[in-house]
Amino acid sequence: MSSSTITRVLLDNYVPSGRAKLSDFKIVQAPAPTKDQLGENEVILRPLYYSVDPYQRNRISGAMPGYTENFKKGDPISNYLVGTIVASTSADFQEGDLVLHNDGNWETEYITKASAISKAPAQQGIDPKDYVGVLSMPSFTAYVGATILAEPKAGETILVSSASGAVGQMVVQLSKVRGLRVVGVAGSDDKVEYLKSIGADAAFNYKTCGDFDAAIKQAAPEGIDIYFDNVGGEFLDAALANINYYARIIICGAITQYNLSSPEERYGVKNITNVLLKKAKVQGYIISSYYNTPIREGFIEQVSKLYHEGKITYRLTEAEGLENGVQAILDLFDGKNFGKSIVKA
Amino acid sequence: MSSSTITRVLLDNYVPSGRAKLSDFKIVQAPAPTKDQLGENEVILRPLYYSVDPYQRNRISGAMPGYTENFKKGDPISNYLVGTIVASTSADFQEGDLVLHNDGNWETEYITKASAISKAPAQQGIDPKDYVGVLSMPSFTAYVGATILAEPKAGETILVSSASGAVGQMVVQLSKVRGLRVVGVAGSDDKVEYLKSIGADAAFNYKTCGDFDAAIKQAAPEGIDIYFDNVGGEFLDAALANINYYARIIICGAITQYNLSSPEERYGVKNITNVLLKKAKVQGYIISSYYNTPIREGFIEQVSKLYHEGKITYRLTEAEGLENGVQAILDLFDGKNFGKSIVKA
Repeated sequence: MSSSTITRVLLDNYVPSGRAKLSDFKIVQAPAPTKDQLGENEVILRPLYYSVDPYQRNRISGAMPGYTENFKKGDPISNYLVGTIVASTSADFQEGDLVLHNDGNWETEYITKASAISKAPAQQGIDPKDYVGVLSMPSFTAYVGATILAEPKAGETILVSSASGAVGQMVVQLSKVRGLRVVGVAGSDDKVEYLKSIGADAAFNYKTCGDFDAAIKQAAPEGIDIYFDNVGGEFLDAALANINYYARIIICGAITQYNLSSPEERYGVKNITNVLLKKAKVQGYIISSYYNTPIREGFIEQVSKLYHEGKITYRLTEAEGLENGVQAILDLFDGKNFGKSIVKA
Repeated sequence: MSSSTITRVLLDNYVPSGRAKLSDFKIVQAPAPTKDQLGENEVILRPLYYSVDPYQRNRISGAMPGYTENFKKGDPISNYLVGTIVASTSADFQEGDLVLHNDGNWETEYITKASAISKAPAQQGIDPKDYVGVLSMPSFTAYVGATILAEPKAGETILVSSASGAVGQMVVQLSKVRGLRVVGVAGSDDKVEYLKSIGADAAFNYKTCGDFDAAIKQAAPEGIDIYFDNVGGEFLDAALANINYYARIIICGAITQYNLSSPEERYGVKNITNVLLKKAKVQGYIISSYYNTPIREGFIEQVSKLYHEGKITYRLTEAEGLENGVQAILDLFDGKNFGKSIVKA
């Protein structure tokens, strides 16, 4: 990247349903922004690492008002990122500051308002990339779901789907720290081995396990007190068949249901009656509701401490160069990522 | 009924699934219990009114451990009832006392431990039958679901299925008292008229409305903040399609799913993904969890006051004679009841 040219990733087509393709995006070069273009209280931001997350798929649909803001055709796509300040007209930021943007553009340099960014909190043993890794939105999502909404109690059993993913690997480890029995589910034998290496008491490969219900019963003969759901559909149904009294089902994602081309294709969940019979709670949430709360400060403090002490690890899949970022999004839906996906600028 | 002969309703066959029939029960005569048969701290109880409720269906399955206790083949079936004391060896109860039993036998007189009964609280303007009517378990169920678990806020919209039933009519009225907009759903035009007469802002007949989703959208164009579910299945799915952000779905019953002959016949709910997208909560519960809590005292006080002041009404379907009690249970599953079903001894 020359200092006078930048790369931008633009949305070229809305994709209301079904698979998105590389050609639904456009990668263009543009002149780099210059200091004299800055208005008051603005900065030139140079991202260092971009976060890659499944919910970016929803944002290209052009039709999900409210859940998260839609990307606009012709505009850069965006997501959580960490970067440095190249130039600033704000008294709050200096050249070289390490900053976070909750929804920063996929451009190698761009002008943004100072009010949209915040300084990365100084944490011992934390790298810039950790702000889109172990301390990023998916980890915070895991923290809120697994330690607050799920009301975990030591000795309970938690079942986690997509357990080796960005959210799942943190759910597994935070649950172990709290004394739960953890059953992890992932889509390859490598991932299953990884889950055991980070403390899962049992783990299985959903692609080769055969009947989901039988696989869950074998891995959790004592039943499920908490199901942390990243996938929805058939696996959610099988989990519901195995819940204990007063179970908590935390609905964090539904990756099996995002790409369907029509509502009719959605999987019909038959065991929802168990929510009644087992006096259970099913809770959906979105992490942005928790951004500006004290819960986030607690998360950063606790998780960076556990990470620095080596009590939790965090697996990343890192793509190199913003021009490869779109492929990194698409790979999420093929299960090609292992752990949290990020793009290095 | 002569004083020397009593009537007993016994379970004659377990019915794991599908419709139960009159012949799955046995109605027998037996000698009346006598005072000399009483052990220490026992009473002869003569029920005045028996409560009839859908969950009695589950209890004849022989296979639902834990949700509520199963009835045993050859034993009397049971349910909430109000009765008088005929004889007592307990210092706590005198002949003629009006008492409640949370799970009393369907026998016209029988011996029970004094510890299993409690005195009916004295409430102004309350008849004995009101203890299996307006103040009974289904009303308490409505109170817990609609005023506590649903976290209602004035101005919100609540959708209620089986709204003219034992639970539903109370949900409708308690929600109106709290300033909600109420949409009631029932299975006949008479019932729809009744719902409007007790304050529902909109109501429709699910048997004639055509497409559920369109009917809900028409009755609640502003969307649903609370769905009080008594039916499960297809209607639950349509309700989920119409929830607002942070909606609460209270799962109180699933009458459409109880009689199915196999798990495969269960309706598959396709819109559960909306629980995620709308950050909603789905809460199952059973009222017995709340029996011995201060919530129950609050319920009796508030609801008997509202009832005595004429601010709520309560519709009963009353069968006469215990020998007609089984038919009253079966009628629930044909929608033949209107309001709460009871049997007069």
